[in-house]
Amino acid sequence: MPTPARTPVTVVGLGAMGAALASAYLAAGHPTTVWNRSPEKAAPLVERGARHAPDIRAAVAASPLTLACLTTYDATLAALEPAAAELAGRALVTLNSGSPSGARAMASWATGHGARFLDGAVKNVPTAVGEPETLLYYGGDRTVFDEYGTTLRVLGGDTQFLGPEPDLAALYEQAVGGTLLPALLGFYQGAALVTARGLKAETLVPHTRKWLEMIISVLPLHAAEIDRGDYADPLSSIEIFHAGIPYDQELGTENGLDVRWHEPMHDLLRRAMAEGRGDQSIAALVELLRNPAGTAGGSGPSGG
Amino acid sequence: MPTPARTPVTVVGLGAMGAALASAYLAAGHPTTVWNRSPEKAAPLVERGARHAPDIRAAVAASPLTLACLTTYDATLAALEPAAAELAGRALVTLNSGSPSGARAMASWATGHGARFLDGAVKNVPTAVGEPETLLYYGGDRTVFDEYGTTLRVLGGDTQFLGPEPDLAALYEQAVGGTLLPALLGFYQGAALVTARGLKAETLVPHTRKWLEMIISVLPLHAAEIDRGDYADPLSSIEIFHAGIPYDQELGTENGLDVRWHEPMHDLLRRAMAEGRGDQSIAALVELLRNPAGTAGGSGPSGG
Ligand SMILES: NC(=O)c1ccc[n+]([C@@H]2O[C@H](COP(=O)([O-])OP(=O)(O)OC[C@H]3O[C@@H](n4cnc5c(N)ncnc54)[C@H](OP(=O)(O)O)[C@@H]3O)[C@@H](O)[C@H]2O)c1
Ligand SMILES: NC(=O)c1ccc[n+]([C@@H]2O[C@H](COP(=O)([O-])OP(=O)(O)OC[C@H]3O[C@@H](n4cnc5c(N)ncnc54)[C@H](OP(=O)(O)O)[C@@H]3O)[C@@H](O)[C@H]2O)c1
Repeated sequence: MPTPARTPVTVVGLGAMGAALASAYLAAGHPTTVWNRSPEKAAPLVERGARHAPDIRAAVAASPLTLACLTTYDATLAALEPAAAELAGRALVTLNSGSPSGARAMASWATGHGARFLDGAVKNVPTAVGEPETLLYYGGDRTVFDEYGTTLRVLGGDTQFLGPEPDLAALYEQAVGGTLLPALLGFYQGAALVTARGLKAETLVPHTRKWLEMIISVLPLHAAEIDRGDYADPLSSIEIFHAGIPYDQELGTENGLDVRWHEPMHDLLRRAMAEGRGDQSIAALVELLRNPAGTAGGSGPSGG
Repeated sequence: MPTPARTPVTVVGLGAMGAALASAYLAAGHPTTVWNRSPEKAAPLVERGARHAPDIRAAVAASPLTLACLTTYDATLAALEPAAAELAGRALVTLNSGSPSGARAMASWATGHGARFLDGAVKNVPTAVGEPETLLYYGGDRTVFDEYGTTLRVLGGDTQFLGPEPDLAALYEQAVGGTLLPALLGFYQGAALVTARGLKAETLVPHTRKWLEMIISVLPLHAAEIDRGDYADPLSSIEIFHAGIPYDQELGTENGLDVRWHEPMHDLLRRAMAEGRGDQSIAALVELLRNPAGTAGGSGPSGG
């Protein structure tokens, strides 16, 4: 049997990630058209067989499927604007980071011009594009995901459809992203603590790894409590975390560390105690995050 | 060859964890003496072959090695006090949670009475005691760790010696512990976000798992930056995190969520920018945690 013909693809944006996407398609034998604002970035891909489109209109016109990977939705809109007419009837997939509102604006612009639109996220570094364990997820037009499923899976073996709303990938990205800086800061605080004792920060890595793996292992239980809205049979109670507050403070005083970033978390614990939630699961804190007390929207900037 | 005789052990404190320790020793064929303030908790272990000591002095006198697992160091001191004379020349291992200062106080009391002292931590749940992957680590008298290595490994296959200082286990416990509530809160915020859209919190679990695994994978690089004190070649820059601040705030406003717990983290990012660290690695935040600005100790309680 002859190999079935690969879907021609266009990749718009050849930064670190866009170049990795185009590379993966070239490696998989797809006819690949590329375009980038700074045209010199196309050269290494052209050497490997890519077609360099002279302008964005020709780029979009070259394939039934265009993948755009620029820094932001605004940049993507600016780059694609001249090719709005060519998008009609074609499939457009955006893979940049951004907010759900940005994704929705992108989607209405694209569908307004007759494109079939899917927004996705690459949950890995450029060098991992194409690997079996690389996760990408998408929200938007299911027919695009189904029709080009094989083509999309070239970018990573763990390719998922989240649902028909075009902001779901951005929503999940935002939903998981809130863990990054807090988790890193927790590690930096631990590093400050052990290095103050003359130990290397690297000695902390295996311990923090185990600890984060433990956290991973309890997430399904916490999610189930949240989905049931039932916090009465806790694995770890609010009270236990509340009892730990003086230890956080002692850590600061004893070691001359700035632990003030814990204070609003302590305030949440105190509010939960005051609401009589002491013997509820720590997951009940989700209820306090949903109901900001003492502010209109709970999101006022703190100045700087 | 006959099986070599197992070291007799005494387990003091038969709460959830202490009972699991005694169980593991019984299962491994060690002559096991037990004691608990509330004596009725000894019964199920006696049924399985444990000797129930009539008082704490007899308990400590029964074995060359005593493991104590009570709630706190204060409780452990209170329970062991009457057996101070019996501790002389024997090995004592404490396995409760607590602060480094508590561990040091425990150590000086124990060594002051002639005991050889080791303080450890069980980094897992009671049901995982004895499993090959269960991590326990110890700091203190190396000769205890070496002489009773086989006996200590009965409690978990991943048994480590951290160093000769008796507060190291408590120190590492404190150092990793600072990640728990922030990482959980990050997940709860994500859960509040997706559930506000009618999606289940459980749908977020695989995404957060991947995200935490990604964080785990970058920890060695961040630790290396901290150990070198060189933040000039960043994987992720302070600037990139700083640029993300409005997204955190938009998340609060758009979805009616309380995102105020991010504010002191934003302040750290703003201070880092003001110090000209924008193009340094995010790991440079450790330098700000080490040098609290604007307060004497950086650990003042926030009231509440
Ligand atoms: N790199 C990663 O590890 C990674 C991982 C996951 C997701 N992402 C996301 O993927 C997206 C791209 O990241 P990247 O690492 O590839 O970024 P990058 O290396 O900085 O590349 C940015 C790309 O956007 C283009 N661009 C920016 N503004 C433009 C405009 N106004 N008009 C036209 N083109 C414009 C740039 O064109 P020029 O070459 O002309 O400047 C370049 O092609 C981002 O949203 C990022 O968050 C990246
Ligand atoms: N359970 C876990 O998942 C886990 C995991 C890792 C580490 N740990 C740590 O292990 C330690 C014990 O935890 P646990 O879960 O076994 O706690 P627990 O089930 O609450 O048992 C507490 C034990 O401490 C004894 N105790 C408390 N105060 C005492 C006092 N003043 N005098 C004498 N005995 C006293 C209790 O005796 P009575 O029976 O007479 O009350 C009981 O034996 C804690 O430090 C905990 O943080 C626990």
